[in-house]
Amino acid sequence: LVARMREFGTTIFSEMTALAVRTGSINLGQGFPDTDGPASMLEHAVTAIRGGLNQYPPGPGMPELRQAVAEHRKQHYGLLYEPDGEILVTVGATEALAASVLALCEAGDEVILFEPYYDSYAAAVALSGAVRRTVALRPAGDRFTFDPDELRAAVGPRTRAILVNSPHNPTGTVFTRDELALVAAVCQEHDLIAITDEVYEHLTFDGVEHVPMATLPGMRERTVMISSAGKTFSATGWKIGWVCGPPELVAAVQSVKQFLTFTSGAPWQVAVAHALREELGWVAGARDALAAKRDRLMAGLSAAGFGVYRPAGTYFVQTDIRPLGFTDGAELARRLPELAGVVAVPTQVFYDHPELGRQFLRFAFCKKDEIIDEAVMRLARLG
Amino acid sequence: LVARMREFGTTIFSEMTALAVRTGSINLGQGFPDTDGPASMLEHAVTAIRGGLNQYPPGPGMPELRQAVAEHRKQHYGLLYEPDGEILVTVGATEALAASVLALCEAGDEVILFEPYYDSYAAAVALSGAVRRTVALRPAGDRFTFDPDELRAAVGPRTRAILVNSPHNPTGTVFTRDELALVAAVCQEHDLIAITDEVYEHLTFDGVEHVPMATLPGMRERTVMISSAGKTFSATGWKIGWVCGPPELVAAVQSVKQFLTFTSGAPWQVAVAHALREELGWVAGARDALAAKRDRLMAGLSAAGFGVYRPAGTYFVQTDIRPLGFTDGAELARRLPELAGVVAVPTQVFYDHPELGRQFLRFAFCKKDEIIDEAVMRLARLG
Ligand SMILES: CSCCC(=O)C(=O)O
Ligand SMILES: CSCCC(=O)C(=O)O
Repeated sequence: LVARMREFGTTIFSEMTALAVRTGSINLGQGFPDTDGPASMLEHAVTAIRGGLNQYPPGPGMPELRQAVAEHRKQHYGLLYEPDGEILVTVGATEALAASVLALCEAGDEVILFEPYYDSYAAAVALSGAVRRTVALRPAGDRFTFDPDELRAAVGPRTRAILVNSPHNPTGTVFTRDELALVAAVCQEHDLIAITDEVYEHLTFDGVEHVPMATLPGMRERTVMISSAGKTFSATGWKIGWVCGPPELVAAVQSVKQFLTFTSGAPWQVAVAHALREELGWVAGARDALAAKRDRLMAGLSAAGFGVYRPAGTYFVQTDIRPLGFTDGAELARRLPELAGVVAVPTQVFYDHPELGRQFLRFAFCKKDEIIDEAVMRLARLG
Repeated sequence: LVARMREFGTTIFSEMTALAVRTGSINLGQGFPDTDGPASMLEHAVTAIRGGLNQYPPGPGMPELRQAVAEHRKQHYGLLYEPDGEILVTVGATEALAASVLALCEAGDEVILFEPYYDSYAAAVALSGAVRRTVALRPAGDRFTFDPDELRAAVGPRTRAILVNSPHNPTGTVFTRDELALVAAVCQEHDLIAITDEVYEHLTFDGVEHVPMATLPGMRERTVMISSAGKTFSATGWKIGWVCGPPELVAAVQSVKQFLTFTSGAPWQVAVAHALREELGWVAGARDALAAKRDRLMAGLSAAGFGVYRPAGTYFVQTDIRPLGFTDGAELARRLPELAGVVAVPTQVFYDHPELGRQFLRFAFCKKDEIIDEAVMRLARLG
């Protein structure tokens, strides 16, 4: 393995899911739902497979999906993107992210990440030979937020991009318009690109609004906006994602993307196009159901003795293990199967400064109620 | 776009397919079949989608697919690979290739390619910051072969890997055991890794045998063996590929692969597992049908005045345009829609030394007989 990748082992998600399988534990680690998306979407995929849509889709993606994404961006956010040239279909948000960083960051460039960060961000930066700088997200009530001075201090002459993930995994925080405006101002002042991971855009609760960075004044032309179908339509295994942005940025991302995987998933692309057009009602229902699951898991975790941060989005609850007498989340995550028959994700692996995240453990609530109930019953043993 | 990727525009395949669509031409450019794979494979995918296999598969791939690949390697080639740790499922061979090069080649390392080469090889090398050295394949009768001295001369102190594609796209040549042994000797002498693209392993004709590099003495431990379902089972749009190799190489590839796309295609993975076990009879029939299509296209191209190289594998015919009075394949490829209503691929784009390939044009024959007939009728106008 090349030197630049040696700090990255197996992703924590694969590791924790393997641990759950091996120990027969309830898996509240890796974030994937245990029920599928809208039936009509699945049937569209079936029809496409039987109907002969099994060969390479066009490089930028199936036209109907790019069209549906364009309509979605317009209707939801008032953002106008041309299906031809401003929208690119990818193998999930992960590929979109990797291709964006590889396409836009020279070796030695710097990329700013908010920590805790989703692990593939750091890996994509390392793959490109760029260097990451982190800005800490710290608890402020139920939310996690950053210090604007720390953000400004992270910018240097080699800074090329800021990666922004909102709704934020693993903290469940949804960045406010004011927070995004601070990031936008820094981007404009220093001529930086914003790469945004918005895969949880539809999974916000209690009326909290998701604000895309690209809607802020002056930001559309410098934002690579990434999202995907996996979380919105509960099809995490299909890996259909997309990039929206100005033509020169999207063309750069496509130049790299085409050599990572070429294209993929034609049958799913048309199924997702259908879902974006016809199944946002299903998504609203799924979101409400998720909000109830969040409350269910939070109540159980509180009762079990965890400190709990109420997430405004995503399908994760961030917890503090110290009230239970534990101090090291990574250690507790390893022991949790034997202590309670449950698997969770130790948030500290998403930090460059693990001391900032030692006390956190992340639990997923995109699971059937009975699974959540069983998990919290088991976790009650910890107290 | 970063400097290292600036020499790569849109892949020639997307460009030529877009040209075919725009001009309403018959597309014998990009290699994809116009009929689908075995019905039972498609139905396995349908069952998986309806049966709830729509979330992330495990990082290394679905266990049943890794098992089926292991059995296939054993039965066909006597190669033993452990499903756990020696087999990794990828988003087609393209991702396998990109991840292998990114995982194994440091910036400044050198990678040897045989030219003409499939375009993503050069792009993957560039992405990793490595440098490519090419060894020319030159016509010798119907085959294309290399000069062993040229191969040896291409190796230097920074050489890390040799990329070997057999059956070879775009020439249709199947490397002989002797040719592979020459490459193997160089790999062993200089401690190089062989990265092999064997996606056309089942598409050889006239009894010509595909020999995997890993079956040569001393090569299994230094070979990253790449193949995929797309060509074998006529499902190029599913993008299910796999890497086989010794544990330390496969682990390195996985370290990168997980951050390019994480995982994908669970329903297709189980469908392909089924096909590998139960549908190799279908593949044999498809191969025989392809051989007949090859003969059909070759006869038509000869009659139209092209010089034709008889391919022993793949689904491409390499032709020489000079007998028709043309000299520049790239120019002819651009004009072919208007001249004849057909699209082909100019082989010279796959060369670092385009003067070696100016006279070639590649035609795909994985098409319905009536399409081939119509194409050759149109091409007869050129004479
Ligand atoms: C790509 S696997 C991880 C799923 C996920 O987004 C998470 O658990 O954080
Ligand atoms: C990945 S698109 C190209 C298909 C193909 O292998 C070819 O035409 O050479």
